Amino acid sequence: MHTRHGPIAVDEKARWVWAFDEVEAVYKKLDGDKERVLTLLGGKGANLAEIARIGLLIPPGFTVTTEACMHFLKTDKKLSQDMWNQIEEGILHLEERTEKELGNPENPLLVSCRSGARYSMPGMMDTVLNIGLNDETVEGLSKATGDPRFAFDCYRRLIQMYATVVRGLDDEPFEATLSQRRKKGGNEADFSAADWRLITDQFKSIYRSATGEDFPHDPLIQIRSAVEAVFSSWNGKRAIDYRNATHIEHHLGTACNVVAMVFGNLGQNSATGVAFTRNPSTGEKKIFGEYLTNAQGEDVVAGTRNAKPIERLATEMPACYQDFLKACAKLEEHFTDMQDLEFTIENGKFWLLQTRNGKRTPEASVRIAVDLANAGAIKRREAVLHVEPQQIDALLHPRFHHKSKRRALEEKRLLARGINASPGAAVGKIAFDADLAEEWGSKQGLDVIMVRPFTRPDDVHGMLASRGIVTCEGGATSHAAVVARQFGVPCIVGASQIEIDLENRCLTSQRTRITEGELVSIDGTTGEVISGSLPTIETQLDEHRYLKQLLDWADSYRSLEIRANADTPHDAKIARRYGASGIGLCRTEHMFFDPERLPHVQRMILTESKAERDDALRTLLEFQRKDFEGLFQSMDGLPVVFRLIDPPLHEFLPDRQSLADEIFDLRVLGRSDELSSKEKLLKQIEHHHESNPMMGLRGVRLSLLHPEIIRMQVRAMLEAAVNAKRKGIHARPEIMIPLTSHLEEFRAAKEIIEGVARECCEQSGVSVDYTIGSMIEIPRACTIAGGLALESAFFSFGTNDLTQMTFGFSRDDAERTFLPHYLDHGILPTNPFQSLDTEGVGSLIHLAVDEIRAATDGLEIGVCGEHGGDPASIEFFHQQGFNYVSCSPYRVPIARLAAAHAALKLPEL
Amino acid sequence: MHTRHGPIAVDEKARWVWAFDEVEAVYKKLDGDKERVLTLLGGKGANLAEIARIGLLIPPGFTVTTEACMHFLKTDKKLSQDMWNQIEEGILHLEERTEKELGNPENPLLVSCRSGARYSMPGMMDTVLNIGLNDETVEGLSKATGDPRFAFDCYRRLIQMYATVVRGLDDEPFEATLSQRRKKGGNEADFSAADWRLITDQFKSIYRSATGEDFPHDPLIQIRSAVEAVFSSWNGKRAIDYRNATHIEHHLGTACNVVAMVFGNLGQNSATGVAFTRNPSTGEKKIFGEYLTNAQGEDVVAGTRNAKPIERLATEMPACYQDFLKACAKLEEHFTDMQDLEFTIENGKFWLLQTRNGKRTPEASVRIAVDLANAGAIKRREAVLHVEPQQIDALLHPRFHHKSKRRALEEKRLLARGINASPGAAVGKIAFDADLAEEWGSKQGLDVIMVRPFTRPDDVHGMLASRGIVTCEGGATSHAAVVARQFGVPCIVGASQIEIDLENRCLTSQRTRITEGELVSIDGTTGEVISGSLPTIETQLDEHRYLKQLLDWADSYRSLEIRANADTPHDAKIARRYGASGIGLCRTEHMFFDPERLPHVQRMILTESKAERDDALRTLLEFQRKDFEGLFQSMDGLPVVFRLIDPPLHEFLPDRQSLADEIFDLRVLGRSDELSSKEKLLKQIEHHHESNPMMGLRGVRLSLLHPEIIRMQVRAMLEAAVNAKRKGIHARPEIMIPLTSHLEEFRAAKEIIEGVARECCEQSGVSVDYTIGSMIEIPRACTIAGGLALESAFFSFGTNDLTQMTFGFSRDDAERTFLPHYLDHGILPTNPFQSLDTEGVGSLIHLAVDEIRAATDGLEIGVCGEHGGDPASIEFFHQQGFNYVSCSPYRVPIARLAAAHAALKLPEL
Repeated sequence: MHTRHGPIAVDEKARWVWAFDEVEAVYKKLDGDKERVLTLLGGKGANLAEIARIGLLIPPGFTVTTEACMHFLKTDKKLSQDMWNQIEEGILHLEERTEKELGNPENPLLVSCRSGARYSMPGMMDTVLNIGLNDETVEGLSKATGDPRFAFDCYRRLIQMYATVVRGLDDEPFEATLSQRRKKGGNEADFSAADWRLITDQFKSIYRSATGEDFPHDPLIQIRSAVEAVFSSWNGKRAIDYRNATHIEHHLGTACNVVAMVFGNLGQNSATGVAFTRNPSTGEKKIFGEYLTNAQGEDVVAGTRNAKPIERLATEMPACYQDFLKACAKLEEHFTDMQDLEFTIENGKFWLLQTRNGKRTPEASVRIAVDLANAGAIKRREAVLHVEPQQIDALLHPRFHHKSKRRALEEKRLLARGINASPGAAVGKIAFDADLAEEWGSKQGLDVIMVRPFTRPDDVHGMLASRGIVTCEGGATSHAAVVARQFGVPCIVGASQIEIDLENRCLTSQRTRITEGELVSIDGTTGEVISGSLPTIETQLDEHRYLKQLLDWADSYRSLEIRANADTPHDAKIARRYGASGIGLCRTEHMFFDPERLPHVQRMILTESKAERDDALRTLLEFQRKDFEGLFQSMDGLPVVFRLIDPPLHEFLPDRQSLADEIFDLRVLGRSDELSSKEKLLKQIEHHHESNPMMGLRGVRLSLLHPEIIRMQVRAMLEAAVNAKRKGIHARPEIMIPLTSHLEEFRAAKEIIEGVARECCEQSGVSVDYTIGSMIEIPRACTIAGGLALESAFFSFGTNDLTQMTFGFSRDDAERTFLPHYLDHGILPTNPFQSLDTEGVGSLIHLAVDEIRAATDGLEIGVCGEHGGDPASIEFFHQQGFNYVSCSPYRVPIARLAAAHAALKLPEL
Repeated sequence: MHTRHGPIAVDEKARWVWAFDEVEAVYKKLDGDKERVLTLLGGKGANLAEIARIGLLIPPGFTVTTEACMHFLKTDKKLSQDMWNQIEEGILHLEERTEKELGNPENPLLVSCRSGARYSMPGMMDTVLNIGLNDETVEGLSKATGDPRFAFDCYRRLIQMYATVVRGLDDEPFEATLSQRRKKGGNEADFSAADWRLITDQFKSIYRSATGEDFPHDPLIQIRSAVEAVFSSWNGKRAIDYRNATHIEHHLGTACNVVAMVFGNLGQNSATGVAFTRNPSTGEKKIFGEYLTNAQGEDVVAGTRNAKPIERLATEMPACYQDFLKACAKLEEHFTDMQDLEFTIENGKFWLLQTRNGKRTPEASVRIAVDLANAGAIKRREAVLHVEPQQIDALLHPRFHHKSKRRALEEKRLLARGINASPGAAVGKIAFDADLAEEWGSKQGLDVIMVRPFTRPDDVHGMLASRGIVTCEGGATSHAAVVARQFGVPCIVGASQIEIDLENRCLTSQRTRITEGELVSIDGTTGEVISGSLPTIETQLDEHRYLKQLLDWADSYRSLEIRANADTPHDAKIARRYGASGIGLCRTEHMFFDPERLPHVQRMILTESKAERDDALRTLLEFQRKDFEGLFQSMDGLPVVFRLIDPPLHEFLPDRQSLADEIFDLRVLGRSDELSSKEKLLKQIEHHHESNPMMGLRGVRLSLLHPEIIRMQVRAMLEAAVNAKRKGIHARPEIMIPLTSHLEEFRAAKEIIEGVARECCEQSGVSVDYTIGSMIEIPRACTIAGGLALESAFFSFGTNDLTQMTFGFSRDDAERTFLPHYLDHGILPTNPFQSLDTEGVGSLIHLAVDEIRAATDGLEIGVCGEHGGDPASIEFFHQQGFNYVSCSPYRVPIARLAAAHAALKLPEL
C-alpha cells in the first residue's frame, strides 16, 4: 500500500489512512515522535503497527486516523470523498495481503472495524465484527470452513451488531428471538446450523421492519457505515462522560482500525487466549494466561467456559506454544514492559491480535520495574519513571483484599460513599459516640469504627481509640478529616446517605439498618462504607524490598527535599522512617485538642481574670515544651518548621448549637442554677462567632491581638531547644508565621518572637539557632513576597488556604455544594484542592517565587499544603525551583518518587 | 545672616538653620521645589519666610530644620556641636535685626521656640514662650515697658512652661499656687505686680524642689533646652497617635522656629487678633476676624474676653487697620487662597505672626475656589484642584448644624459611636422593631429611627419607613449597611455600646436609658448617635450653583466616565441628576428583599415542587421586568450594567437563630401543630447553611447549579428592553456575570444567557443589543483575565470582594475584630475597604488590565466596588487606564471631581 500510495497525488496533509505495515513511514512523517504517532493512530492502531514492525504476525489491516475522525465530526459527520478513496485503497491492499476478496462468495474477506483512541476507554466506543458477510458470502464461508453453524452464527452477529451499533436499533427484539429459541431447549452452543439460518432470517426481518430498508448486502456500504459509527461514537454521551471523569481531552478523536478477521472457533485446531508476560498481581517473572480451544476472544473474557492455563498449550499445540513464547519475549523486549496480549490460533496458525502494557497492581508495578532494571532491560531512571507515584500510596496503607471487596459490592453491601478524607482500610464495631468508642477501643481492646454526624474537639479521645471514622457531614477539611489525617486513621466524611438514629442507637443507609456494635468495613482510600467485615492486608515500607530499592534510585535523581507534616513525636518517627529529611509543618495548636489540654485552652480563652489566663498558659507551656522536646529528639539534626497558632479561637470552644440545645433542656427542667453559667458561656461563644471564620481572626492576626498565646508557644519551642541542646540533641527550629498578608504584620509578629527568644536565651544562658519565616497562603502575600523576602528567613506556601482564597472557594462548602457539579461538567479540569491549579494559583506562586529570588539569594522555599504530596503538583513545585515539599508522613514515599519523576522529566532545571 | 553664613565653611549638607529672610537661598538650594521647602522648614517656618519674602512685617527669627530634628532624634537626642553653633549664629543675627541683646538687662531680647511640622498637628507638640527672661532681664523688661505686672507675669509663665514642657514636671503645684492666690480674691487680671513677683519666687522654689536645680538663668541654656524639647516632642505619644490617626508619616520630623517676641499686651496701644480673608463658613468674599486690645494671642483663642469685630480696628487704630487690610490682600494674592492669619500690634506697630490657608466648610471651599477662578486669581484647573473631592460629600447629604452638634457633644449627649455605614444626618423617634417603624413612619408620618441588634430581610419594610437606622452588631457590609446605602438612608452599624432591652422597650448606653418613642439624632457620616433632637440642613445639587460650576469645569478635564450603582428607577434618576453617564452596577437581587417579593423568593428556594417553583419564578419575572423597564426609562440612551444574582440563597431565608427560638417557644407551649412545619423549615435553612458563605455557593456558581434564577432574570431584562424599544426608549443592557474564576465557568453561564436572549428576541420579533461581561472579584480571575478577554465583552472590577479575597479578610468580621487594631497600630496604613490597597489588590488589578489590553483592543473596563467613589482609589483607576468608575448616586459628584484631580495630577496619561 505504501508503494501504491506514495506516488499518488494525495496531499500529505490529507493522508487519512495508514496500513499497519506502513508504520516506518508514519514515524518518518512525524519526525520519529512516538507521542504523535500514538495520537494520530490511537493506542490500538499504533501498537498493532508496532507488532508488525518487529516481525510478529498480526492480521493485516489499516488505521483510519484520529485526524480523520475529528475532520468527520467537524464536517457534519460525512466521510469526505478523499477519505473514502483512501479507505477503498486500504481495502484493496488488504485483499492483496490476505489473498481474499471482499464480497467474493468463493473466498470472502471478512473484516472488523474497531475504535482505538489515544487513551484506552474500554467499552465506551463501538466495534463491528464480521463485516463482509451477506447472503452470498455466508455460503462461501460455510463452504470454506465446512461449518455452516459457524458461518450463520457469524452472520447473525453481524446483523445484530450492525443494527444496534450502526443504526442505533434497540437490541431487545434480537435478544427476544434468541430467548424464544432457547425456550425450545438448550442454549446457543446447542443451536444447530438450521437454527442459526432461521435466526438470521428473523434478524433480517427485524432489521427491515425497524428501518424500512433491507440489511445492506454490499460489504463496502457495511464498512463505510461502520467507520462512520465508530467515529460518531467518540461524541456519544457515554464516551463524553467517561472522558470528563478521566480527564481525557475531547479534541483527540478516535481512530478506526479495519482488520482482517481471524477465527479461533474453526474447530479443535483453533484457539484464542489472553496472557500477561509476568504475574500482574505480584510482578513475578512468570507468564500468566489462559486460553480456550475452538472459541472466540469474547468467550475467554466472558468466562462462560472454563479456560485452560496457558501452560497446557505446550502439549496441545506445541508449535503454536513456541510461537507464543517467542512473541512474549519479543514484545516485552521491544516495549520494555510487561505486556497484556491477545492471540488467536486459526487452523494451527498463531496470530497476535493486540498487545499493550499490562495493567497491574501497585505491588507488581514496583517489582516489574525493579526486575527489568536489574535485568538490564531498562535503565534505573526508566524503572523510576515506570511506576506512577500515586500507585504506591495503596502499598503503604492497610487495604482490603481486592476480591473480597468486589464480592461485597456485588452482594450490595455498600452502605454509603463519602469523601475519602484519610486513606486506608479498617474494620470494626460501630460506636456512635466518643466515650463508647474509647471504652470499647482503649479499655476493652476492640476494633471500633466511630460514626458521628460530625466531630468536635470533644470527640478526639474517641477518634484516637478508633480504627476508623465516618461522619455524615463535613468536607475534606472538616475537623474529623484533619484530625484523622494527622493521626493516620482511615476516615470518610460527608457520607450523607447515612442517617443516625441516636435514640435507637442505629443507623440507616441504603434501606439497611445497622445497630451499634455491628461490624462495618471502611475504605478511606475510596470513601466506601461496607457492612460486615472484610479481610485487610497490612504492610510496612521495610517489607517492600522492591519499593525500597526503587525509592533509593529515585532519591539519586530528585533535587527536591521531602519533609513531612507532623505534629507529634510519633508522626515524626514514621516520617523519618519513610525518608523525610525534616518536618515542614508542625501545627502547634493541634495538641490543644487533646482532652487533657482542651480545658486549659478553653480557660485561657474564656476567663476574664489575667491571673487565671496566665495560669492556663503556664499549664499549656509545660505540655507544649514536652511535645517539642519529643519532636527535636525524633528529628535530631533535621529542621522542624513550627507554625504558630492558626485557627480561630472558637474552634477550641464547645459547639454553639449543642450548647444552645443543652440550655433548652435546662430551661425545660427548670434548672436555673446551672442555666446562668451556661448562658454566659453561650454568650462568650457567640462573641467569638464569625460570619466567615476562614477569613477572620486567625493566624498572625490572632497573634497580634492576643500575643500571649504565641509568647507561650515560642517560649515552649526555645526552652525545648535549650533542653535538647543540653542532652546533645541538635534542634533546628524554624518558626513560621501563618497568614501574613502585609509586611508590617510580619514585622510586628517577628518582634514579639525575637523578644521572647532573647529572654529565653538569656534566662537559660544557652544560645539557640532559630529562624523566623513566613507562610504564604494569602494572595496578597504573593504580591509582596519580594518585600517580605528582606525580612523573612524562609518561605513556605500554604497551598490549601492559598487555593481557597485565590478561587474564593471555601473548601468545606464547595466540596459539599458546587465543586462536584463543576468536576462532573468539566467546568474545572481537576479538584484544585487535590492537584494544584497551576494556571491560577500557580501563576501567583510563580509571581511570588520570582520576586523572592530577585530580592534575595538562595532563600529556602517550601510548600506545606496537601499539594506537597500530590505528584502533579510536585512536578510544578520542582519546575518553580522550590527547595522542598512537605506532606503527610504516609505520602513521603510518593513524594520522593514524584520528585524524581519531575527531575527526570524536566532535566533542564 | 545670609551674608555671614555664606562664606563660612559650613558644609551645605549640614546646614541646619535658616533665617526667615533667607528663603530665596533655601529655594535655590532645593531647586525651587516648594514641596521640599515645606518639608525642610515645616509649614509655619516656610510660611513666615514666605511672608517676609513678599515684604510684610514679621518678627525676625529663624528655623531649625526638620532635618535637624531627625538628626537629633537619631543621635541619642543630642544637639550636635555644629547644629548648636548655627543656632548661636542665628541668635546673633536676631540680635542685630532687633537691636536687642539676649540676657542684657538693659534691652533684653525675648524669643519663643515653636514647633512647626510639615503638616499641621495642632496642640500635639511643644512651644515655649518668653525665653530670655531671668532675675535680671525681668527687671529690664519691667523698666522698658514700665509695667512690672506684665514683666513678672511673663517671667512666671516662662518658668511654668519651661518646667512642664522642657523638664516634664507636673503642672499641678504651679496651678495650685495660682489658685491659692485666687482664694484671696480676684483672678489673674486683678493680681498686682507684687503678687506676680511673689508667685514667680514660689514657681522658682517649686522648680528647685522638683528638679534639685535652680531654674536656669542663662538664656542660651533656655533656648538650647527648648529646642531639644520641641524636637523630642515629635516622638511623644500624643504626636505619634495623632500621626497614626491622620496618616502623617513618622520620618518627617518637626522644625523649631525661634522667633523674637512681640507683645500685644503692652497697653491700650497694643492688640492681638486673628482673621480670615474670606468668610470660612460661606466662602463669601468679606474679611472675617476679631481682636482684643492689650491682650495676648492666647486670650483671643481662649475666648475668655469678648473680642471685638475686626472692623472696629478701623476706628480704634486706623493706621494699623490699613496695614492689616494691605496684608490681607497681599497674602491672598500671594498664596492664591483664603488665608487664616494672626497678628499682633505692639505699641502701634503691626506685626504678622502667622498665616496659613484657612480651614473652611466644604461649602466655603467650593465657593472660594470658584470665586478665585472667576476673578482670574487662579486658573479653572487650579480651582478644581483647590477643592478636595471628599469634602463635597458633606454638601450632598443632610447634615447637622455644626454648632448644635458640638454643643450636644459638650453636653455629653453622645450615646454611642458605631461604623458610619451610610452617610447623612437624621432625627426621629426610636422604634425597636420594623412593624412599629412602619406604623409610625409610613402610616402616622412620623420621623423614625429604627434601632435593632441587626437587621434581616424581614425588616426591610421598617428600614424603608425610617429616617435612619442603627444596629448594635454587624459591619459595613452587613445587611443593614448594604440596604441603607442602597436607599440612601443614614445608617450606623456596630454601635456595640448600645444594649437593647426589648422587654422594657428601652435601650441603655453610656449609662443613659432611652425609652422607645424618645428622640435621637444620628450622624451616618461620622457614626455618632446622640440623644435628643439636633437641627439638620438639607441640600440639593441644584441649590449649589458654585458646586455645579466647579463640577462642570471638572468634567472638562477628566477622562474617566462616572457611572452609578443603582438598583431602582428612583436611584437611577438621582444618579443621572448628579451627572452619572450610566449605571455601572444594578444588583438585580436587591429587589428580592422587598416585602412584597420576599415570600416568592423564599417559595422559589424552599419548594420541592417544580410547578410551584416555576410559579414563583413567573411572579418574580413580572416584578423584575417592571423594575428593569423603569431603569431603562430613567437611563434612556445610557448603558445599564446588570449583575446577575450574587448572594447565597440563605440570605433570603429567615434567620436560623430566630427560627430556632420560635421553635423553642412553640415546644414550650406544646403547639405541635405549627411545630412540624417550622422544624422542616429550620432543617431546610440548615441545609443551606455554609461555614464561609462569602466563599460559598453564590454568584456564577449559584447560577450554574440553579440556572432557573438567571434564566428568569435575563428574560426580565430582555423583555424589558423589548418593551422599552417599542416605546422608543434606547435600552443598553450590559449583563454581568459575578464571581467568575475560571474561563469555563464564564462560558457555561454565557451559554445560558445567550440561549434565553435568543428565545426572547425570537418570541418578540424585536432584536435587542446586549453584551455579556465578566465581573472580576476573585484573585484567580485576575490571573486569567487575558483568556477571559477573548470571551467577555466588558469587565468590571468588584473591588469589595477582590479586597476580601486578596487579603483573606472577611470584612464583617475584620472590621469588628482586628482591623481597628491594625489601623490604630499602623500595621495597615488605611482601611483597604475604604481606599484601594494599591500595593496588593492594585498589583492584581494591574496584572489583569495588562492582560486584557494585551489580548484585545479597547475593551471596556470599569469598577463597581465601593472604591469607585473613593478619591484616592479613583486616581489609581485613572492611572490604570480604566474607562469608568461606578459609585453610589450620592458620590457621583465626588467621583467627577476626583476623576478631574487624577487627570490634572497625571496629565501624561
